[in-house]
Amino acid sequence: MNMYSDVVEIAKRRGFFWPSFSIYGGFSGLYDYGPLGVLLKDNIINKWKKAYLDEGAIFIDTPNITPGEVFDASGHLSRFSDIAAECDSCKSKFKIENVLAFNKIEIIPKSVDEALSISEKNNLKCPVCGNIIKKIYNYNLMFKLENSNFYLRPETAQGIFVNFKLLSNYYRGKLPMAVAQLGKGFRNEISPRQSLIRLREFSQGEVEVFFDPENEYWKDLFDYDEITLKPNTGVEYKTSIKNAFENRIIDNIAMAYFILKTQKILNDIGFKNDNIRFRQHDPDERAHYASDSWDAEARIDDDWVEIVGIANRTNYDLKNHDAKSSERMSLKINNRDVIPNVIEPSYGIDRITLALMVQSYHKNEKGYNVLSFKPEMAPYHFAVLPLIKKENFIKKSMEIYNMIMSIDSYVYYDETGSIGKRYSRQDEIGTPFCITIDYETLENDSVTVRFRDTGNQERIDKKDLLDYLSGKLK
Amino acid sequence: MNMYSDVVEIAKRRGFFWPSFSIYGGFSGLYDYGPLGVLLKDNIINKWKKAYLDEGAIFIDTPNITPGEVFDASGHLSRFSDIAAECDSCKSKFKIENVLAFNKIEIIPKSVDEALSISEKNNLKCPVCGNIIKKIYNYNLMFKLENSNFYLRPETAQGIFVNFKLLSNYYRGKLPMAVAQLGKGFRNEISPRQSLIRLREFSQGEVEVFFDPENEYWKDLFDYDEITLKPNTGVEYKTSIKNAFENRIIDNIAMAYFILKTQKILNDIGFKNDNIRFRQHDPDERAHYASDSWDAEARIDDDWVEIVGIANRTNYDLKNHDAKSSERMSLKINNRDVIPNVIEPSYGIDRITLALMVQSYHKNEKGYNVLSFKPEMAPYHFAVLPLIKKENFIKKSMEIYNMIMSIDSYVYYDETGSIGKRYSRQDEIGTPFCITIDYETLENDSVTVRFRDTGNQERIDKKDLLDYLSGKLK
Repeated sequence: MNMYSDVVEIAKRRGFFWPSFSIYGGFSGLYDYGPLGVLLKDNIINKWKKAYLDEGAIFIDTPNITPGEVFDASGHLSRFSDIAAECDSCKSKFKIENVLAFNKIEIIPKSVDEALSISEKNNLKCPVCGNIIKKIYNYNLMFKLENSNFYLRPETAQGIFVNFKLLSNYYRGKLPMAVAQLGKGFRNEISPRQSLIRLREFSQGEVEVFFDPENEYWKDLFDYDEITLKPNTGVEYKTSIKNAFENRIIDNIAMAYFILKTQKILNDIGFKNDNIRFRQHDPDERAHYASDSWDAEARIDDDWVEIVGIANRTNYDLKNHDAKSSERMSLKINNRDVIPNVIEPSYGIDRITLALMVQSYHKNEKGYNVLSFKPEMAPYHFAVLPLIKKENFIKKSMEIYNMIMSIDSYVYYDETGSIGKRYSRQDEIGTPFCITIDYETLENDSVTVRFRDTGNQERIDKKDLLDYLSGKLK
Repeated sequence: MNMYSDVVEIAKRRGFFWPSFSIYGGFSGLYDYGPLGVLLKDNIINKWKKAYLDEGAIFIDTPNITPGEVFDASGHLSRFSDIAAECDSCKSKFKIENVLAFNKIEIIPKSVDEALSISEKNNLKCPVCGNIIKKIYNYNLMFKLENSNFYLRPETAQGIFVNFKLLSNYYRGKLPMAVAQLGKGFRNEISPRQSLIRLREFSQGEVEVFFDPENEYWKDLFDYDEITLKPNTGVEYKTSIKNAFENRIIDNIAMAYFILKTQKILNDIGFKNDNIRFRQHDPDERAHYASDSWDAEARIDDDWVEIVGIANRTNYDLKNHDAKSSERMSLKINNRDVIPNVIEPSYGIDRITLALMVQSYHKNEKGYNVLSFKPEMAPYHFAVLPLIKKENFIKKSMEIYNMIMSIDSYVYYDETGSIGKRYSRQDEIGTPFCITIDYETLENDSVTVRFRDTGNQERIDKKDLLDYLSGKLK
């Protein structure tokens, strides 16, 4: 089964996403969203946004271009790097892990020195040309702007941390305070791969939840709904967030709450629980700022792929900006000076889009492609189709089309090809409802509504159609 | 009258926008949107998006990081530059126009050579330190990424042009085809200024309308609504788009149509016609790709500021990508090979946000600040206020708050300070309706609804409240 490659093929052919700048040869790690992809991605973003708005989160929007001072304080200048290996002969660049795996060495080095010593003992071969690799170095993943001290941010988070005091004033000093930002992040990946999975430029929905670690705000909200956990000390199993917290599998209350919230958001977007799990990072796998991390992973073929990362950043970032900037980052709470702790649920919008397409993809009994999105998530909610391409059918279709457009902007119109072919085209892009204008429509002003997932049809009077369709979307 | 500086003060104090990275000293040309600014900006974006969706436009989303090959073809590498002057003594950098204006010289040079010859004849003084300026050079406005051939795009447009063939296939070769993109643009301005007006990183909503110049698609849509035009051959006057096109004041039918559409979008956002006009560029003012340009300008104090630029790009961009890339950009129309022409309405989202705040700003009869946004445009639609901060009032208020949140996520809750002060706070951020929970609410389950623009109040039964408020938002 290779659903991933089927979906990538559909994505390009139908207009969800494709590699950028292909007319100039293509450049790895950069992807375009086409017309259908923009609509699907926007629907995902809107679910995320509403979930955090309703949580009481505030939203900000800060620049991609960020001065080096910020990344000096945040540790990204010195520590946000991969160990790279470069072949002197063919000039290929690799992450050291990939070279070691190719050479069947199972150690993952933690420093350049360790990597060099492994290299000296083992004569590492280049996976591309077979030459012995000697050049091993730290490779900072941030893009720098030429002739300046500016960088493209590798995460949207720092734009929130540097504004903590202004935002806390806006929020009248209350905790917990959730601050969300939707925006781009940039990483100069050594080896970008797999379409939307590892991009050099990607969309993030990040939330920094500031809280006083001596308070337990969320405890009453826990429930017994099933969740799949894979702690770094044991095997994958199903439990509830209430049990996981009480048994200290997840030892931080905010972490537990935002894992639960993330599962609910992913469900709302359309992920089934069988296709997602939460995996805890191994200690040596965590980002430099994190004391604990759990990834929401989605199943893509036989792999599990991170789509949301939930990190416990402690007060690492605020403490460092407090030390290096002109701003004090503490709040006075009950006569204590508190630099708040932070839990960060960070949503990878591109990966969620791809994973949602993969989990929605199947072939129907005729062998045709279907994307079974939840109705409100589909790029187009409705398609209007005249049974035949004749003037009276087309005129009536435009009347129905305009009527539906008055309540919903996501309506497709298609008059070319056989009706069966048009249904299949809509199934392949996930349109849940096709409205067909047929002979009977011209006689009695009724239309058929056909359902993507069953192929069944219902006949509805035009006067009832808007209420009927609105009901179906909910 | 200085509404601009009042608005900038309100913006920072209340959380609409402020200079970025101020805890590290601040960096000119970079601004953050705070919680209220994000909501206002999103409302503007949504109006723009819906207007073009309903026009039948398709939307795409392409990367900020763009290979140099694209800007070689588009002419940005060689021609997207300002003439800069730099003082050897104090190291200040200026646009040449500013140095010439300071030295009371009225010529605007078109090349570095011309600027140098003016400089040699006139001994230009540095506006900062008075030293004679000798260094004059071409300054490309694009940011380049270090050690690469990548640039940050100065406009979102090229991401559309390079995809023309893929998009045209998606659209089945039909013309006109409108392709829209919302995204960031980046310009390394020599002298960023005036908060959101000249930013180094800004948000654009660009639309490339591809059409066959031998067709007249839009003519039937023209009307006699009043529009203010300032052609480059004469004075400002009021007319209709129908008259302006018939009299060839605007000589391109697509240009005429999208000027009209832009006025309607700006009206829908909340601009009054008295505060906007369309000014035609002088021939030497146009971008290198444009044969004609009209700016929608908004009044800010005594200035007119460009908020939308509508350019006739002819087939300049497609022709150049056709010549330099692997893709042919022509379509076969009635046996003619046509490289479509392009009209580009480009919306400056940041400037629209600022200009809308300025035109919505006034002081009420008590001397307090009010932002009179259209109700659906305001960051918060409703505020829920307990008359006094006592448990039974707060409990009832939360009940009402949750009830309203079930139909609308943009509800503010405030319990601190006198009720008069809280009304003023909401007026200053533009909230159109305040719902107050008072003694009578506890008796008979009715609330007062207070109107921002009149201060009038109405008493409404709780059971009718949701219908009443929904009606007010439309």
